[in-house]
Amino acid sequence: MNAADPVRDLPVSAPHERGDAARNRALLLDAARRLVAERGADAITMDDVAAAAGVGKGTVFRRFGSRAGLMMVLLDEDERIMQQAFMFGPPPLGPDAPPLDRLLAFGRDRLRFVHTHHELLSAAGREPASRYGAAAAVQRTHVRMLLNSAHSTGDLDGQTDALLALLEADYVEYQLIERGQTLQTLGDTWESVARKLCGR
Amino acid sequence: MNAADPVRDLPVSAPHERGDAARNRALLLDAARRLVAERGADAITMDDVAAAAGVGKGTVFRRFGSRAGLMMVLLDEDERIMQQAFMFGPPPLGPDAPPLDRLLAFGRDRLRFVHTHHELLSAAGREPASRYGAAAAVQRTHVRMLLNSAHSTGDLDGQTDALLALLEADYVEYQLIERGQTLQTLGDTWESVARKLCGR
Repeated sequence: MNAADPVRDLPVSAPHERGDAARNRALLLDAARRLVAERGADAITMDDVAAAAGVGKGTVFRRFGSRAGLMMVLLDEDERIMQQAFMFGPPPLGPDAPPLDRLLAFGRDRLRFVHTHHELLSAAGREPASRYGAAAAVQRTHVRMLLNSAHSTGDLDGQTDALLALLEADYVEYQLIERGQTLQTLGDTWESVARKLCGR
Repeated sequence: MNAADPVRDLPVSAPHERGDAARNRALLLDAARRLVAERGADAITMDDVAAAAGVGKGTVFRRFGSRAGLMMVLLDEDERIMQQAFMFGPPPLGPDAPPLDRLLAFGRDRLRFVHTHHELLSAAGREPASRYGAAAAVQRTHVRMLLNSAHSTGDLDGQTDALLALLEADYVEYQLIERGQTLQTLGDTWESVARKLCGR
């Protein structure tokens, strides 16, 4: 996250918010996360989120400004949760598993994440700067480190970029909708290509 | 090329055009191709093309409708020339070379192509349908066939998609502009990843 991060800079996550406000914010994000998991992000309105959280619609708008604002905060929180999991969490994602196992788990985990948040990620992906800039740097560093630890040889940057293309939001949605793939088969593809690059 | 191909359906390439018209069209496309190679597509105006071809500006507009129309016709013609080269041309691109050599040559050739036409390819790439649809199918089939002939094992569709991501217009321009890469170093990366997937 660098100086131009629009999510972090939103006023909604100020550390000084009062207890009620912080509680409402957590309630609303939990409700939104649950609804997104059940129906997909496209099908959710601010009314739905307010009703599911048991608060007034005005509270949702005061907290997040707009539907887009809510989805950005949700994406950012989930991104942080995922980063915690693959950097410090339990195996197979976290550091106590062998590097190839971590790489395989990372791909399957990220496919679920990308599918959940594809609407926002797809919009962000249309800006080359955000697509290849700071937002993706943590993942690229992680995948490159795992390829290196798994003793892959050759151009690791190129291998990292080629692998990460299989987790790109527009690509994943196209494969799911137009090509009859599932998160399971896309995870199998990730595993096959990752093993190939690591020589197993 | 399928039913919805906007380039093929343009009236400018009608086989019945009169001799003068066909000659002007060829002159203009040659001039445009030369100018794009010299200065890059972004720097070229319809006036430049008319002057370089030695015809009036009105003729350029009658032939191609607009600057975007001219660039689309040029992209389409170059795409056909490139397809001819990798399907039927001399080695190392064409069928008389070993499959891995053809795959390496394809990547380097395509990098030059993508850089030349990045403006239009980038605009087309923002539409997922065109990006993963008919326009890219010929290349995907070709790369998959070469991986198979080079005795790569595993998920060849996934390997093909991962490899082709290294030739994507936005990615290539980002690497050239922001990452200090050159067409040479990007070609080296293509070679390294392709060899890895083919086990050499």
